[in-house]
Amino acid sequence: MDRLRAVYRLSVDRAEVEARADALALEQTVELPRAAIRDPVLEREALGRVEGLEPHPAGGFRVVVEYPVAATGVEDPAQLLNVLFGNASLQGDVALEDVDLPPSLAAALGGPGHGIQGVRAATGVRDRPLTCAALKPMGLNPEAIGEVCLAFARAGVDVVKDDHGLADIPRCPFEARLAACRSAIERAAEETGRRALYVANVIGPPARIRRLLRMAEEGGAGGVLMAPFVIGLPTFREACRDWTELPVIAHPALAGSPRVATELLQGTLFRLYGADAVVFPHAGGRFPIGRETCRALTHRLRRPWEGVRPALPVPAGGMSLERIEEMIAFYGTDTMLLVGGTLYRTDELEARARSFVERVRAAARATEWAG
Amino acid sequence: MDRLRAVYRLSVDRAEVEARADALALEQTVELPRAAIRDPVLEREALGRVEGLEPHPAGGFRVVVEYPVAATGVEDPAQLLNVLFGNASLQGDVALEDVDLPPSLAAALGGPGHGIQGVRAATGVRDRPLTCAALKPMGLNPEAIGEVCLAFARAGVDVVKDDHGLADIPRCPFEARLAACRSAIERAAEETGRRALYVANVIGPPARIRRLLRMAEEGGAGGVLMAPFVIGLPTFREACRDWTELPVIAHPALAGSPRVATELLQGTLFRLYGADAVVFPHAGGRFPIGRETCRALTHRLRRPWEGVRPALPVPAGGMSLERIEEMIAFYGTDTMLLVGGTLYRTDELEARARSFVERVRAAARATEWAG
Repeated sequence: MDRLRAVYRLSVDRAEVEARADALALEQTVELPRAAIRDPVLEREALGRVEGLEPHPAGGFRVVVEYPVAATGVEDPAQLLNVLFGNASLQGDVALEDVDLPPSLAAALGGPGHGIQGVRAATGVRDRPLTCAALKPMGLNPEAIGEVCLAFARAGVDVVKDDHGLADIPRCPFEARLAACRSAIERAAEETGRRALYVANVIGPPARIRRLLRMAEEGGAGGVLMAPFVIGLPTFREACRDWTELPVIAHPALAGSPRVATELLQGTLFRLYGADAVVFPHAGGRFPIGRETCRALTHRLRRPWEGVRPALPVPAGGMSLERIEEMIAFYGTDTMLLVGGTLYRTDELEARARSFVERVRAAARATEWAG
Repeated sequence: MDRLRAVYRLSVDRAEVEARADALALEQTVELPRAAIRDPVLEREALGRVEGLEPHPAGGFRVVVEYPVAATGVEDPAQLLNVLFGNASLQGDVALEDVDLPPSLAAALGGPGHGIQGVRAATGVRDRPLTCAALKPMGLNPEAIGEVCLAFARAGVDVVKDDHGLADIPRCPFEARLAACRSAIERAAEETGRRALYVANVIGPPARIRRLLRMAEEGGAGGVLMAPFVIGLPTFREACRDWTELPVIAHPALAGSPRVATELLQGTLFRLYGADAVVFPHAGGRFPIGRETCRALTHRLRRPWEGVRPALPVPAGGMSLERIEEMIAFYGTDTMLLVGGTLYRTDELEARARSFVERVRAAARATEWAG
């Protein structure tokens, strides 16, 4: 019987750790005291069991629990989350640090439909980091957003994406924004010979997501942006797999949790659930994240994983143009640099975007020569 | 222009609190530095603004931010979450403590389809706390689950619900479990003249949720259990409103967050998004929650709210039969007491369930006489 493994940190005392670890394995599956489990088939098909327990370097204990794959249902991305951390999330002293899935389960969940190669193919950029700029702010009408899109596309930005706050709102309906950006992209392509990819922000309950995804495909978007934690990870996965053929960029909104490791959540799980690219804050910006977490997250997005395509890291979160060289040195070539607010500091949007693009190209060339 | 208000706790120093509060209002809406906002229409239609700032009794500062309702899209339960806490969730020192919505927005989101009255009508219990028992453990086949259901129904339990871990799994497919429980309920009703309500656990990505909800309705379930955070709150809301007419009980799996107040999340928001009843841990059980939080959560589920029906509190989480009197004194009559594991401590399921039922009835009578 296939089993999966979850690694938890239990911030408890030595005296209680064994009981608490066993209680955790029970809580996440049968939700009964051990004395009430009298059927051996439950042991095999349902019950979690503690497979490892050692002091955690950061304090408390590192506990490994194995679960039968059967407990997670049949390719059920919701029940998998439930088993891994459902009730445990209500325990303040339990954190989920890592997950190890059998290849069959990973392959069933599927991962990215396009992956890094697919995103590269869609943009036509093979051998350097990609550039990405964000359309904003919420509150502009479609024409104004279209003008910003035109400036970025003319400047040679590879991917022009909606800000994740650009919902389907009366002042800027999704369809009108899509049309405005589509014609901006066309116009810039005629002028420059290069076609940027427009990535539309899709948010809402399932019916709206499906409707917007259909519009995005029919209206010529090059990809879509979705926030898995806002719409729900299982809904995100169904959207990636069954509702659209466009590449999907995942946004981390609402995903911050001190009790689930960032690299697991935004790295492993976002990739597993279907993200082709994942936006996350780079260290030293306006979000508190360390370089080691960025490194681990990136590794989880790109590392070889049987049956699961690699996903493109998209570091962001208050990056300035002055940090481009450092970021390329840190993330390497298979990355997409996303700059947001920094391009809006002056009215010279196109000129700022052009320096961004040129700086990335120059840094990429320098890295290549150095290599 | 209608506005909504969010209350945050910022765990920052006096010296930086004003800048951080302003940055938060910008982050959650336009995602741009203030200097880049040059259009007055943005101020009115998109921009969050700080409306209050004072020391927080627990340390740091209490900051009130007002947002234009337009920023949350058109009745978009996903974008509302995004504006309230999307990027802020990535800031370790920001917590969301409360939300105040204009009546128009609350009415648009809608709340419970049945509410306390609807759940009472479905069970036929008008004047005392309801009793609820959980079918478990995961790993039993439908026949075995049906036998447990029969024992609980015979004992006179009002609501017999699936454990939230009972997914649609090969060993216990949803449809077969539903059929077994339905006939157990019928059989007990013939014997006793009282019909228990069977509440089926529904989990999965949207397509599966819709399929299971249809089966539940057609197969005679009396209600369904869903975990809003596992399936995603916007999906939960669409399911409650558009996919089923059955009463819905919300389960708190995966909803634990030290950065969103429990009473706001599992009280206000679960109710607003459509839960007719809400399961939460009672203080003193196996989950760390205080009596004050239980009280606040319960108040938020039941308090008058224009256009939004009250929802039934369902305290649970390791309750023993010995605590029933205390719980009824604490929660009053409009509550449903859910016991799980304690009924399974011996093989005498039906007898244990019968003491549960009798104890609740006796305590309710005593309370009534005392009152």
